Order: sequence, then C-alpha cells, then structure tokens
Amino acid sequence: MTERAEDVRGELLLVPGGMGTRRMAFDETLVALLRGKAKQAKDVLTVCTGAVLLGRTGLIDGLRATSNKKALDWVKATCPAVHWQDVARWVQDDKYYTASGVTAGIDMALGFIADRYDRCTAERIARGMEYVWHDNPALDPFARVPHESDF
Amino acid sequence: MTERAEDVRGELLLVPGGMGTRRMAFDETLVALLRGKAKQAKDVLTVCTGAVLLGRTGLIDGLRATSNKKALDWVKATCPAVHWQDVARWVQDDKYYTASGVTAGIDMALGFIADRYDRCTAERIARGMEYVWHDNPALDPFARVPHESDF
Repeated sequence: MTERAEDVRGELLLVPGGMGTRRMAFDETLVALLRGKAKQAKDVLTVCTGAVLLGRTGLIDGLRATSNKKALDWVKATCPAVHWQDVARWVQDDKYYTASGVTAGIDMALGFIADRYDRCTAERIARGMEYVWHDNPALDPFARVPHESDF
Repeated sequence: MTERAEDVRGELLLVPGGMGTRRMAFDETLVALLRGKAKQAKDVLTVCTGAVLLGRTGLIDGLRATSNKKALDWVKATCPAVHWQDVARWVQDDKYYTASGVTAGIDMALGFIADRYDRCTAERIARGMEYVWHDNPALDPFARVPHESDF
C-alpha cells in the first residue's frame, strides 16, 4: 500500500483477510490510509477478516456486512457499529461487498462481476476455472449455530 | 525453479498450469529440469495444464491423468502416451496427482491431504476456508461432451 491515495480513485479496492488482520486492525496509520482509499474507490470488496479492517475505518457503520464465521465473535467485538450478518455467503450494501471466509471471496467476486457486468460473464469465468459457483449470497453452509463452541 | 534438484528431494512438487504452459511445454531445458525434480519428489501434484509439463517429462506415460477439460484436445495431442481421463475432477496414479481446471486443484489438494494424513484433517481445512469440498474425484461437472465446440 502506498501513500498515493489517487492510485485507486474510481477503481476497485480489494481488502484481503488473514491472521495479520488481528494486529493490523489496531494500526491507526493503516486504518486511516485504508479509509482514504476506500472513500475514493468506486467499489470496495473484502474477503474473510478483511472486513474488520474496513469496519475499523467507520465507513460501514450502520451498514450490513459479513466475515469469516469462525472469527465472527472477534469481528463483532472489534467493530460493534456494523450490522454483521450471521448467515450470509457474502453481503452487498451500498458500494461495499463483504465475503465470509476465504473461498466465499470467489463466490462474492463472481457475484460482483454479475452485478457490474452481466451474469453470463460471471458464469463464463466460473466455467473457465471449473468452479461450481455458489451464486446465492443468502445460502451459507458455514453459518455458525449460536453458542456453538467450534465446528 | 533453480538448478538445485536436491531442493525437493523427498518433498512435494506442485506444478501449476496457466497459459504459460503453451510455451513452456516445448522448453526442453525446463522439461528436463522438471523431470529431475519430479523423479526425486515424494509426491507430484499438477493443477490445470500443469499436467502437460509433467506429461512432457515422460514420467506419466502409460499412467492415468487429467487436465483442464477446455484444454484437453491440446493436452492429448501434446502428450499422447498418457492415459488422459475425460471425466475426472482429479486423478491419482502412482505418486502423481493431476487436477482438472484451476479450482479442481483445491479439491485435489484436500483429497491428497485426506490420503496422506486423514480425512478429518482435510475436512477441518475445508471448513476453515469455508470451502464446499467436492470430495469425489470421479464426479466432474465440467467434463466435456465429445465434439462439443465450447461451453
């Protein structure tokens, strides 16, 4: 990530997740930089716990979003003003797309392409990479049962 | 790839695919280097058209293998001594695992983990990345109908 916020003006910003987000979520310099880039980007997509980094910018306060279901307790505690969705493969609200865990990002990316381009394009890409696209963002086979201690 | 073939002795060798394989398949220096590494590796896995690079080494002549179904005509013409499987998500023969197109590599990798470790480990990894594992290597939703011109 560079200091040149104009790099992403009018473009797509993709925020990945991973264990690094546990520390990065509390890096105020990074969060401020991300906030500027996210405000300028035309579309903002997050995968897995990348949603926490976006959540920390305050830009999705009051909006619906999701994240990896195994990390959802930490996600909710870290960004309590976001309307976190317990059951969602991915969520679109305003210009923000947030995917659940890791490979949910593939389904979200195809959904984003279907929204921004057309469904045939998304389906052609999925076939090209021999991917069985889970195209319904509301169907979430990994949603956690309340009070479940682990999978 | 370095010249130090001992790098992979006793280890896993993963050969990725992609458009670059169209040229690399006829790079005799690379194919010879790959042959040495593949012979020494304990396990050899290929994804998509990476199977052609392995096929060009001659090491899977007479063995069963698969590759991206959209590229299968080129794959068969380039390595005619391999028993290419038209319908397979992935194929294991001897120490060689070959996956069909792109994301079939995820299913194969989990199948490899199930074979070498145990099924619970593979399932735990799939859940951790919220991946609906297509765990049957014989079920291939992208198998091409004979003489089909394209999808």
